[in-house]
Amino acid sequence: MKDSLLTGTRIRPAPENHLGEDVIQEARRRFMGGALMAGAAAMAAPAVAASAESLDIPEWTRQLGPGVGTHPYGMPSRYEANVQRRESPGLTRTKQSSVSFTPLQSLFGIVTPSGLHFERYHAGLPDIDPAEHRLAIHGLVEQPRLYTMDDLLRLPSESRFHFVECGANTAMEWGNSAVPTVQYTHGMLSCSEYTGVPLKLLLEESGYDRKLGKYLLAEGSDGAALTRTIGIDAALDDAMVVYAQNGEMLRPEQGYPLRLLVPGVQGISQVKWLRRLEVGDMPWNTREESLQYADFMPDGRYRQYTWIQEAKSVITTPSGGQVIMDKGYHQITGLAWSGRGRITRVDVSTDGGRNWREATLQAPVMSKCLTRFRCDWNWDGGPALLQSRAIDETGYVQPQMKQLREVRGTRSIYHNNAIQTWKVAEDGVVTNVQVS
Amino acid sequence: MKDSLLTGTRIRPAPENHLGEDVIQEARRRFMGGALMAGAAAMAAPAVAASAESLDIPEWTRQLGPGVGTHPYGMPSRYEANVQRRESPGLTRTKQSSVSFTPLQSLFGIVTPSGLHFERYHAGLPDIDPAEHRLAIHGLVEQPRLYTMDDLLRLPSESRFHFVECGANTAMEWGNSAVPTVQYTHGMLSCSEYTGVPLKLLLEESGYDRKLGKYLLAEGSDGAALTRTIGIDAALDDAMVVYAQNGEMLRPEQGYPLRLLVPGVQGISQVKWLRRLEVGDMPWNTREESLQYADFMPDGRYRQYTWIQEAKSVITTPSGGQVIMDKGYHQITGLAWSGRGRITRVDVSTDGGRNWREATLQAPVMSKCLTRFRCDWNWDGGPALLQSRAIDETGYVQPQMKQLREVRGTRSIYHNNAIQTWKVAEDGVVTNVQVS
Repeated sequence: MKDSLLTGTRIRPAPENHLGEDVIQEARRRFMGGALMAGAAAMAAPAVAASAESLDIPEWTRQLGPGVGTHPYGMPSRYEANVQRRESPGLTRTKQSSVSFTPLQSLFGIVTPSGLHFERYHAGLPDIDPAEHRLAIHGLVEQPRLYTMDDLLRLPSESRFHFVECGANTAMEWGNSAVPTVQYTHGMLSCSEYTGVPLKLLLEESGYDRKLGKYLLAEGSDGAALTRTIGIDAALDDAMVVYAQNGEMLRPEQGYPLRLLVPGVQGISQVKWLRRLEVGDMPWNTREESLQYADFMPDGRYRQYTWIQEAKSVITTPSGGQVIMDKGYHQITGLAWSGRGRITRVDVSTDGGRNWREATLQAPVMSKCLTRFRCDWNWDGGPALLQSRAIDETGYVQPQMKQLREVRGTRSIYHNNAIQTWKVAEDGVVTNVQVS
Repeated sequence: MKDSLLTGTRIRPAPENHLGEDVIQEARRRFMGGALMAGAAAMAAPAVAASAESLDIPEWTRQLGPGVGTHPYGMPSRYEANVQRRESPGLTRTKQSSVSFTPLQSLFGIVTPSGLHFERYHAGLPDIDPAEHRLAIHGLVEQPRLYTMDDLLRLPSESRFHFVECGANTAMEWGNSAVPTVQYTHGMLSCSEYTGVPLKLLLEESGYDRKLGKYLLAEGSDGAALTRTIGIDAALDDAMVVYAQNGEMLRPEQGYPLRLLVPGVQGISQVKWLRRLEVGDMPWNTREESLQYADFMPDGRYRQYTWIQEAKSVITTPSGGQVIMDKGYHQITGLAWSGRGRITRVDVSTDGGRNWREATLQAPVMSKCLTRFRCDWNWDGGPALLQSRAIDETGYVQPQMKQLREVRGTRSIYHNNAIQTWKVAEDGVVTNVQVS
């Protein structure tokens, strides 16, 4: 019989926010209850020898299924019902000012299905009639303008793939709280193909003041009327006023019918339900950029307007909450991204950062976009510490948690881009740990 | 006041399969009922002068919307309810062996939302339990194999963006039937990011016969047990056994939990609900490759196994059923693709092919993938004939309908990749026409 890669690894995803006791017990039975000796059959190649005769005709092949038109807008299989956005109980006081996380452990490639894009609201989800929605551009401009959606839809457009990451993603890891799954450690991260109008074009249409107009204020039309200051350089670079996401109009949770997109910048600055852009000569210092989204430093001061999401990566399989059922071949895979441009390399370690191997990057690698990386691994059944480390086109190397803490201390909430560690125990259970 | 691009074009999409009489009447009123003279206000720049004061606070900004967790799996806005897959009434005798079309006129960029990917069934939609699903590889192999989904999910994987187009797409245009919208002329076309296992790897795992094994038979586990022959060269090149689409597990309508993907090849060969791959020494000549999906030539003979989708393009806006409400700036946009590799150029004509201008291609341009093209246009209000023409990396130029008919006659059903013409009338109504 020909040698096969299939000599035994199986991953059981545990997408809930704690490990089911039944899953742990099954793993323990296999590994610690003598299964290694007694259960030779269980360790055999799971891709069993087959012949055409051994392949039973399944029930569904004997049936005539429903026809077209049953699902004018389709949904995932009922067998995938546990792949969903999840809240973190107790994280916030109200659901209207809260977050739900993308199930990164169940996803493939780089596109986040729009139905699973993470949510972050400051005053709940508005239900906006696009025929009534307006975008105003005013302030230090020659000609203030008020755009309908029809106006914007006929202007020159662009489509690009970009990630959106909340500045508070991975915030809980500043302490040693070790939330259980990658959905909660890194799930305020999603990636879409966005289509919209270059912001540069709209600013030029308004005749913005090229001498004094150094900043923009972006305002959302949600109940929070959320506001953020945007530097004019970013606005004139690759920023867009976006109306479409993954081929269709924006989803309500992501700003329908219009949002700002400033690629590479923290999520809160990608102002959703965008209604107003004001050109000004200094930062506005609004609530969400002074009291919130500032980095508290060890010396008691804080950094304001630190908005670029630095290079970061995370292994999504195997990851916390999953259980590796057998030794042998396993593909390690995850995501890497940088707010400063393209990812140029990702390294993977299985021994907590002592040794590193270069992972394969899936092409095309796009700027300020998620990059899928993959690395072969043969698990020998011993304990392992899995890490990934991203390097971007500026040469920046994703730091270990220890390095980040040396600069930033432990009082930060935002902008944690440290290397994530997943511990694989001898019983195959994968957990979130911090290594010193 | 600064000059603006916004001097008047507005598109009203008409996604139904015929123009609503009300839409046509409104356009006629504007253009033919004296609106051009009497309605000067209606022709003014729709992006009106604005000030912060003129921007009323909308109702939804005064409210606290629902919080996170309301939509564990999100859906489009209720205002986008008419963006859906549509059947063509009377096209087939039963819904179980039929097709629904992607609303290309309402889409942006290159990704097709999975819920809007076109459907094609030969015996309805099976409801498959992935835990029970198996893939057999047998025939001229050293070691037949039977894979579970767990087996496949842990093997080395790849992700790539590819289009899938039914071989019968645009079939109705062989005659002069002129179906009304791009949804029906070209909507058996979609594009996704696919993730799966390279078929080469599975064939090597089985130890396929490198001397005699020249063909594969792929079989689906739907009620039709649909079968197609695949040449081994394509199987060893870029073919994949695919389990994920746009970041999540395949949708049921696209083959959940497993399909074959042979990039660039007609849709029927991307066998859905894949259960069996048999290695053989000659083509199987099954029902779906002898009685169906063959090209009837003018001399009475027919071409069999013509499966590559040649270079093709179509303008999606403006397109049939839409109404251009005003003269002036308008961005022409559409899609181009080739089953032989990358698109290298798209030309656009507004006078039925007499003069051509090169369109802008959205980067990255990927192989055997949709490419979004865009071209500026100032409509002068006169009649226009809009066409696009794709050229791929082999140098192949998409033919005019007349050129294609000279070779293929009019008895063909499949593989119509002719240039599409949209006529813009003076009243702004866009219709599907054929030019000689």
